[in-house]
Amino acid sequence: MGKHSIKEVAKKAGVSISTVSRVLNNSAPVSEKLRRKVEKAIEELGYYPSHLAKSLRKGETGTIGFILPDITNPFFANIVRGAEDYLRNEGYNLILCNSDQNQMQEIELLKVLISKNIDGLLFTGTGSSNPLLLEKIQHGLKVVFLDRIIQGINSSYVIIDNKKGMNLLLDYLIGKGHKNFVFINGNKETFSARIRYETFVKRIRTENLKFKHYFTEFSYEAGYSKAKKLKELPDVILCGNDLIAYGVIDALEEKGYKVPEDVSVTGFDDIPFSKHFKPPLTTVYQPMYEMGKKAAELLLKIIKGEKLINKGVILSPQLIIRESTKEMVNK
Amino acid sequence: MGKHSIKEVAKKAGVSISTVSRVLNNSAPVSEKLRRKVEKAIEELGYYPSHLAKSLRKGETGTIGFILPDITNPFFANIVRGAEDYLRNEGYNLILCNSDQNQMQEIELLKVLISKNIDGLLFTGTGSSNPLLLEKIQHGLKVVFLDRIIQGINSSYVIIDNKKGMNLLLDYLIGKGHKNFVFINGNKETFSARIRYETFVKRIRTENLKFKHYFTEFSYEAGYSKAKKLKELPDVILCGNDLIAYGVIDALEEKGYKVPEDVSVTGFDDIPFSKHFKPPLTTVYQPMYEMGKKAAELLLKIIKGEKLINKGVILSPQLIIRESTKEMVNK
Repeated sequence: MGKHSIKEVAKKAGVSISTVSRVLNNSAPVSEKLRRKVEKAIEELGYYPSHLAKSLRKGETGTIGFILPDITNPFFANIVRGAEDYLRNEGYNLILCNSDQNQMQEIELLKVLISKNIDGLLFTGTGSSNPLLLEKIQHGLKVVFLDRIIQGINSSYVIIDNKKGMNLLLDYLIGKGHKNFVFINGNKETFSARIRYETFVKRIRTENLKFKHYFTEFSYEAGYSKAKKLKELPDVILCGNDLIAYGVIDALEEKGYKVPEDVSVTGFDDIPFSKHFKPPLTTVYQPMYEMGKKAAELLLKIIKGEKLINKGVILSPQLIIRESTKEMVNK
Repeated sequence: MGKHSIKEVAKKAGVSISTVSRVLNNSAPVSEKLRRKVEKAIEELGYYPSHLAKSLRKGETGTIGFILPDITNPFFANIVRGAEDYLRNEGYNLILCNSDQNQMQEIELLKVLISKNIDGLLFTGTGSSNPLLLEKIQHGLKVVFLDRIIQGINSSYVIIDNKKGMNLLLDYLIGKGHKNFVFINGNKETFSARIRYETFVKRIRTENLKFKHYFTEFSYEAGYSKAKKLKELPDVILCGNDLIAYGVIDALEEKGYKVPEDVSVTGFDDIPFSKHFKPPLTTVYQPMYEMGKKAAELLLKIIKGEKLINKGVILSPQLIIRESTKEMVNK
C-alpha cells in the first residue's frame, strides 16, 4: 500500500509514463479517453491525485520538519497545534522531532530531515551557533525560527517581544512595592532566557533594587530543586516559565511557606493549566497557538517564493495578574 | 536544497544512474575511483547516504504517520514523546496529525498520509467503524491502534487494561465506604470510555449501589460545565480523565464545595500535572510514554515482517491514591 510509483499507474492504465505525467500536471493536452484510463488506475491503486499532482508539479514533498525541545512541555504542544492546523489546511504535513535542546541531536535531526526532502523547517533550537544549519540555509533550505533567534544566522523568525513581557511584569511588581527579587531563569543558551535576563538586570539596577539571578532549566524539577536550596526568601521569585513556577511553589509549600503571603511567585508563558493552579499563577501570556500558526504561514510564504514585507514576526505578550502575587504591605 | 534525485547525483558525479545505485546499495562491485566520485557528489549535494540508501534499498520512506485527537492534551503529548523517541533511534520520523476525534478529518488525513507513502500508521481514532481504513489495511497498510481498538478491524494494538483500571478504582472507593456514584465520562464513541462505562455499571449493579453516568468529552471544559449543572452531590464523582476532574473540582469549588471533604473526585490517566494539582488527584495511572514506545516498536516489527507472538499489547494501569478522595465517615 502506498508504495506505488507513477510507473505503476502507467502500467495499470496501459499508457506511457509521460501520459500519466501529462494528466497529473495538466502540462499538455491528453485525450479524454486516456485521461479516464489514468484516473481509473490512480483510483484503483489508491493514489490521491490532488496531493500526488501537487507533489510532482512543484517538486515538493508537502512535508515540513519541526525540531523543538520537548513536546511534553505544553508550551510547545500548543505551538505545534497552531502550526499543524495551519499546515494541514494548506495540504502540508508536519514531521515532529524532539531535540531536548541538545545541539548534537539537532544536527542529526537536521541531516535526517534534509534526507527526507522536507520543503521547509520550523526550528526551536539551542541559541548556540549551528554551522550545519547556517550552511544549509545558505544552500537554500527554507527555515523559520520559532521562539528563538540564532546568533550569526540571518533568517526569518517568529518570536514574542520578551523585553516588553519582562518590563510589563516588572512594572507591575515594582508598582506593588516589591524591592528584593530572585529570578530563577531557564537554560542559559536560550534566546528568550537571555533577553529576559538582560532586561531584568538592566531594569533592577536602574531602580536600584536587590536581586539574585540563576540560570537553570525550563522544567518543574529545576524550579523545585532551586527553591528547595534557597536560604533566604526575597519579596518575589520570578520564574523563567510556568513549569519552573509550579516547582518553586510546591517546594516553598513543602518548606512551610505560603504563596503569596510569604513570597510572591510569577511564571512566564501562561500554559493552559496556569489559571487552574492553586494559587492561580500570575504570569506573562505568550500567544502559543498564534506563534505556531504565524510561523507555518511565514514558512509557506517563503516556500512559495512570495515577497515578504517583514521577515520577522514579533508577537506581543500580555501580563496576566492572578493570585500568586500580592501587594507588599510596607512599600 | 533537499530536492535532489539520484539522477542529479549521477549528473554531478559524471557517472550513470546505475553506478550511483550500485554504490548506494552495495549491490554490485564498483571501482574505487567511481565510488569516490559518487560519494563526493552526494556530499556536495547535501545527500545523507545512510538514510537515502536505506530508503532506496527497502522501498521505504522512513516516515510513520500518527493520527491522534489533540496534541495539546498531555496524555497524547506523552504518548507521542514515547513513540518519537523510539522511532528516531531506529531511523524513522513521525508525521503528526491532529484529528479532533472527527472521523471525516481522520479519513482525509489517512488519504494524505497514504499519498505521502508512509511506511506505517499509529492510529488513535474514534471508535466508529472506518471503511477506508479497513480497506487500506486489507491492501497492506501497516497499522497499530493505540489506546483504541476499532470494531470490525482486526489489527495490532497497544491499549491498557481499562477493565482492571476501573476495578482497581472501584475496589478502593467501595472499600472506603462510597455508596453513591456519579461518573462523568469522556466521548461515547471512544473505546476506553465504553469499556470503563461497562465495567463501572456492571460492578455498581453487582454491589447494589446508586449511580448516575454521563458521556461528555475528554476536556476540562466538559467537566467544568457538567459539574456546574449537578443538582445533588454524590459521595464521589469519577471522571473519564484528569482534565475532566480538574474542571469538576474547579466548578465544585466555585459553588462553595470542598474536595474531598464534601465530595471525593477521581481522574484517569495521571498526566504529569495531576500530582501537583490542589488537591493532588487520586487517579488511575496509564503508562503513556510506554504506550507510545511499545506501539512504535510493534509497528516497526510489522513493517520489517517479523513474526509476532502477540499482535496486541495490553499494559497494566495503576491506582494512584492522593488527596482528592477520602474515607466516608458513616460507612
